[in-house]
Amino acid sequence: MGGFVSFVSSGPGDPELITLKAVDRLARADVVLFDDLASGPVLGHAGRAAELIGVGKRAGRPSAKQDHVNALLVEHARAGRRVVRLKSGDAGIFGRLEEELHAVTEAGIAHEIVPGVPSACAAAAAAGIPLTRRMTARRVQFITGADVTGGLPGDVNWAALADPAATTVVFMGQRTFTRLAEGLIAHGLSPDTPALLAEAVGHPEQALIRATIAGLARRLDGAKAEHPALILYGALAFDGLA
Amino acid sequence: MGGFVSFVSSGPGDPELITLKAVDRLARADVVLFDDLASGPVLGHAGRAAELIGVGKRAGRPSAKQDHVNALLVEHARAGRRVVRLKSGDAGIFGRLEEELHAVTEAGIAHEIVPGVPSACAAAAAAGIPLTRRMTARRVQFITGADVTGGLPGDVNWAALADPAATTVVFMGQRTFTRLAEGLIAHGLSPDTPALLAEAVGHPEQALIRATIAGLARRLDGAKAEHPALILYGALAFDGLA
Repeated sequence: MGGFVSFVSSGPGDPELITLKAVDRLARADVVLFDDLASGPVLGHAGRAAELIGVGKRAGRPSAKQDHVNALLVEHARAGRRVVRLKSGDAGIFGRLEEELHAVTEAGIAHEIVPGVPSACAAAAAAGIPLTRRMTARRVQFITGADVTGGLPGDVNWAALADPAATTVVFMGQRTFTRLAEGLIAHGLSPDTPALLAEAVGHPEQALIRATIAGLARRLDGAKAEHPALILYGALAFDGLA
Repeated sequence: MGGFVSFVSSGPGDPELITLKAVDRLARADVVLFDDLASGPVLGHAGRAAELIGVGKRAGRPSAKQDHVNALLVEHARAGRRVVRLKSGDAGIFGRLEEELHAVTEAGIAHEIVPGVPSACAAAAAAGIPLTRRMTARRVQFITGADVTGGLPGDVNWAALADPAATTVVFMGQRTFTRLAEGLIAHGLSPDTPALLAEAVGHPEQALIRATIAGLARRLDGAKAEHPALILYGALAFDGLA
């Protein structure tokens, strides 16, 4: 009776970049289901009595466990517990939220979504730049650099992605960026387009590397993805800002 | 000596959807410069001694006052104060952040950007839907529906915007959506594409209206923008979710 699932966005990793609502939901949770990406200091907001369950999905690895996560959500909620399903960044952006929403909806379980700070916004803020620019970047888009196979998705909208008047943020794109950049350049985007590699945003080991799309493509050719990273490219406001 | 400017994202308006870092910066501020959109309950996090200065920009109205805001930021920071420049949603998304960053950078004033919850993420969460879907919406994009003249921007990337495989969020788009929808349909997007009008997201008077792009275009034809609103369209996950 009375079980409830809160899909809670944990933000980019920095425990100060979580919302008051997320802190409240964690403090009142009976059970917290967390991924590797959303773990660490953020879990410190959970109450001492809360059961913390790692469900261990990692960026870039196809999830064999979605059905298992769905089943855990339903099982704990049906036992009358307050369940927090913690998701890194904003839960609605590349978080496999839909599958879990379907599971709890089909089971008739009351739920809510608590939005959060997307890692893309945190990366731009850490680099000291806006994601949009009034005259030169009036569109911002978030894409994933890898499909379920780990490769570059086959249905890339090149006209959208090779647009010099947009800021693009690539999630999970380190291993495919060399191919993506080749396509962007083939579709007319300048090789000198500014790019930013933002590793481990919001974590102590955060690293920001300014480059161009061609330079970053060379740097990442054959690279392994050691940390979760975002790649930003477009009319980035590096010039004239600190 | 020692003045500092924090560009602080206030989130969508709900005072619970502000980050711990934003609360900290407000609590320690000597001066808070706020827009109408970022005002209200969020300002309750400021300390009692803080000077609160409304700089009164509204959505859809061309800003005659940017130079004045820039001058205030520099003046208060040069007086050694901790200045918070509060911006609604995420400060880096359609917030005129770049102009103010340039002003403080040129004046040699230390500063930071505190990212926040974009109103687009809050709108999707309030509607109970994800912004991305694994198979059907692997790209999400934020655009502005109005340029400085208040009209639809002249350089629309139709291939990007008429893509059925993306979720698009239009900021400040109520008055131009009828024209935008005509263009989308002319460029091949189905008139039956799901759409959501999200008014006053995060505020007590929040209203969510599910529609199609054609239906919403009819509804908004000749409409005045009474509340700030977002329009979402694309492969929205209305089906099967509560």
